[in-house]
Amino acid sequence: MPAGSKLGAVTEISEHGLDLPGPLDIGAEAGAALLEQAAELVVRHAAGVAELPVAPAGEGTTELRDWLAGFDFQRPRPGAETLAEVVDQLRRWGVHPTHPRYFGLFNPTPTWWGVAGELVAAGLNPQLAAYSHAPAAVEVERHVVRFLAARLGLPDTAGGCLTTGGAEANLSAMVLALTRRFPDYATGGLRALPHQPVCYVSAEGHHSWLKIAHLTGLGRDAVRTVDVDAGHRMDLAALRRVRDADLAAGAEPFLLVGAVGSAGGGAVDPLPELAGHAAEWGMELHVDAAWAGVVALSDRLRPVLAGVEHADSVTVDAHKWLSAPMGAGIFLARRAESLAAAFQVSTNYMPADTADADGVADPYATSVQWSRRFAGLKVFLALAAVGQHGYAAQVERDVRLGELLAARLAEHGWLRVNDTPLPVVCVVDPDVDRGDPDVSQAWHAAVAAHVVAGGSGWVSPVRLAGRAAIRLCLTSHRTTAADLDQVVTALDDARG
Amino acid sequence: MPAGSKLGAVTEISEHGLDLPGPLDIGAEAGAALLEQAAELVVRHAAGVAELPVAPAGEGTTELRDWLAGFDFQRPRPGAETLAEVVDQLRRWGVHPTHPRYFGLFNPTPTWWGVAGELVAAGLNPQLAAYSHAPAAVEVERHVVRFLAARLGLPDTAGGCLTTGGAEANLSAMVLALTRRFPDYATGGLRALPHQPVCYVSAEGHHSWLKIAHLTGLGRDAVRTVDVDAGHRMDLAALRRVRDADLAAGAEPFLLVGAVGSAGGGAVDPLPELAGHAAEWGMELHVDAAWAGVVALSDRLRPVLAGVEHADSVTVDAHKWLSAPMGAGIFLARRAESLAAAFQVSTNYMPADTADADGVADPYATSVQWSRRFAGLKVFLALAAVGQHGYAAQVERDVRLGELLAARLAEHGWLRVNDTPLPVVCVVDPDVDRGDPDVSQAWHAAVAAHVVAGGSGWVSPVRLAGRAAIRLCLTSHRTTAADLDQVVTALDDARG
Repeated sequence: MPAGSKLGAVTEISEHGLDLPGPLDIGAEAGAALLEQAAELVVRHAAGVAELPVAPAGEGTTELRDWLAGFDFQRPRPGAETLAEVVDQLRRWGVHPTHPRYFGLFNPTPTWWGVAGELVAAGLNPQLAAYSHAPAAVEVERHVVRFLAARLGLPDTAGGCLTTGGAEANLSAMVLALTRRFPDYATGGLRALPHQPVCYVSAEGHHSWLKIAHLTGLGRDAVRTVDVDAGHRMDLAALRRVRDADLAAGAEPFLLVGAVGSAGGGAVDPLPELAGHAAEWGMELHVDAAWAGVVALSDRLRPVLAGVEHADSVTVDAHKWLSAPMGAGIFLARRAESLAAAFQVSTNYMPADTADADGVADPYATSVQWSRRFAGLKVFLALAAVGQHGYAAQVERDVRLGELLAARLAEHGWLRVNDTPLPVVCVVDPDVDRGDPDVSQAWHAAVAAHVVAGGSGWVSPVRLAGRAAIRLCLTSHRTTAADLDQVVTALDDARG
Repeated sequence: MPAGSKLGAVTEISEHGLDLPGPLDIGAEAGAALLEQAAELVVRHAAGVAELPVAPAGEGTTELRDWLAGFDFQRPRPGAETLAEVVDQLRRWGVHPTHPRYFGLFNPTPTWWGVAGELVAAGLNPQLAAYSHAPAAVEVERHVVRFLAARLGLPDTAGGCLTTGGAEANLSAMVLALTRRFPDYATGGLRALPHQPVCYVSAEGHHSWLKIAHLTGLGRDAVRTVDVDAGHRMDLAALRRVRDADLAAGAEPFLLVGAVGSAGGGAVDPLPELAGHAAEWGMELHVDAAWAGVVALSDRLRPVLAGVEHADSVTVDAHKWLSAPMGAGIFLARRAESLAAAFQVSTNYMPADTADADGVADPYATSVQWSRRFAGLKVFLALAAVGQHGYAAQVERDVRLGELLAARLAEHGWLRVNDTPLPVVCVVDPDVDRGDPDVSQAWHAAVAAHVVAGGSGWVSPVRLAGRAAIRLCLTSHRTTAADLDQVVTALDDARG
């Protein structure tokens, strides 16, 4: 089907219908009706979600597939009908992160500003690959990035970008560290280096590092998981031992990762000491504060992050404790210009002015993604509406709720087994905990499952340094003290 | 700030205010008002965008920063006010992909179903990392993936996932190919392999491969750009020469990339021949059909993709020709189970049931991302509403518009220099083209810039195999024949 043959037959091209809207163009009026309906469904869900079970009984796979079998995409179906059906299925078959009693995996109840921001981003659909294509959108994101970098105590040289989440931000950190530490890596790759690079993460660190080591070609073995102390923080003596062994074996330690708020128990690694070691040993320091980085907005809680100001890079997810809708990680680099070395590229078709007025390179040439949606709008709108102090009040409130939850659980005979200033509470039944570890793991998993099945709360089984526990994390800004009472009661009931 | 000290002081915890909503919780009524306003702004933009210049005069950096200086996030500002201001800035300072005369970089005018889908995804905020957290959302996405895979002629074993876009889909392909071809790669990394892996992309292929080679540790040099023929398709003789040289040098070719619809000129690589070579040489075949893969929905245009059914993996972006709002790539793998080997992980805190009823592993363990937003909803809603045949009619219409545009340009003395059945038209002024290449490049860039500055159309300078041209691509489903006339007139004016 070469174009040439068609070009030769110019006069045969029928223009029939080409002056009218195409099949996808239903017009602004029909579009408005669809948005109105979608907004109504979202509002009704938000207003009523607290009356739903937090999680469904079962996964509904068979029912879902039966329903989807009706969508063969051959016979078009009215959009309004499908929209209503989808929302119904989502409400029935899914855990609800927007529920005030979702004590879950850092997935927040999104703010209304955030939801409105997503609607606008989708409707105007700016393309953030090149600065020249979307100056307003890029400037808004950079404004957010600069604000957060300053609150973290990073220098004015800092830069960064929005990512899909913490995993992409951590991937960015890995690529940046490799590019900075090994000049031959960018063009020659890992095989051009004299030694095998290795990185250090606490045994309680995020497992995304394993996937990242796989896909950056380091290999999963290059992630050294360093033992933790009794508080689940990276143990400095263990760190030194691992490094000594690596040096003796001819490996080259290049990246040290400190977590602020580990995914399991909210542990805070000793950043000041890690920063000292990184400097002394010539390693990059990355701080994974995907969840807890937001406490930088609270003067009272900011000390939790002490040491982050020394980081070469930092991960903070806006779609966690900033309560942005999903798909808003933030990657911060101490030196904005270093990003261009890690992600630069030039093409024959992208706009040639690949830099803004300050000479800062285009987003697509300074980050992992290429085409990118306007993920920062939802963050900006919420920050503008509640301000730093509003967020500070929210995270301080969440911390108080966490303390209250811990106190309630203690009153009911549960033993807390994690040590963190952050609002994630991991508890065990002391009697069960004292016994056989396998029995304890099965028992705590069964109790968590019983709570979930009851629909009145979502809690999860966790293992901290191998010890089985039940994990409850404050993740919804709609949670109140009454919700804590309900989940504590549910746990008591589940314990039997 | 250890938690232990606080737990010891249970009675001191003040419950004041904890039974009331937190600062982020403005209630469903205020939320509804915000969504109503956002929807109105989006509708008004859509209704009026055709009256705006397609691109602004300049980038407005100074004005934007002056405006943003008013947002120090100290004094909260009314959300409604900020929302209106942001939309105003976005309308002023940005190229409008939603404009019917944006003949641009594959960024579409989003469908209304797609925009509504984004609103619902943001509002309900499902978390697609684990199947058990969002069965309905994951099943909807898999339904879309299966439909597309079947239309591409991939076998029933195929699987895949939604990505942020083509770059992430291509990254997935690279990691999958490395994992499949080199058993030691996952844990030992690239340095554990006996030879340097290299991959082959046409000289007109997407430059994301360079970034991908950098970040996968292969090194940018491992991407061999194979010369193209006169139609900008990968030249098979050149391919064989490159491979012979690599084998002689001890490198190990493992991945062959064929493009269907190159970013510059829409070239279609000879997939059947590439598939034959890949099989013969023991290489993986990836087809980058980020833009043009959607023609699989048209029985008439599907032959353009002939050979794709042999691919080991395929990239198709829903946020290109399917007109989904930004942030919707699709990665397809011939063997769904191979994804688990490339992206598997296990943690101490994620739900333990890491598979659905069929034993298919969780999304976070079979794809690049971890936490993931419900990117597939917008695609599903649009597919359900217009059906395969609606999309077929749209892409066929776009192809006819492309032919008409080419014909009009030819009538006005422009010479088409790309050869493709797809609706992207690259033209030169024959007189200028015959002269000094540097002069030609500057001249064509200046003409494109003049058109853009005039506001009546967005076209871009391009180089195809080094030859300067002006590129016009049909990307908005709102484009009609009258828009073609306008941009042709603008080009004539710019030529002077």
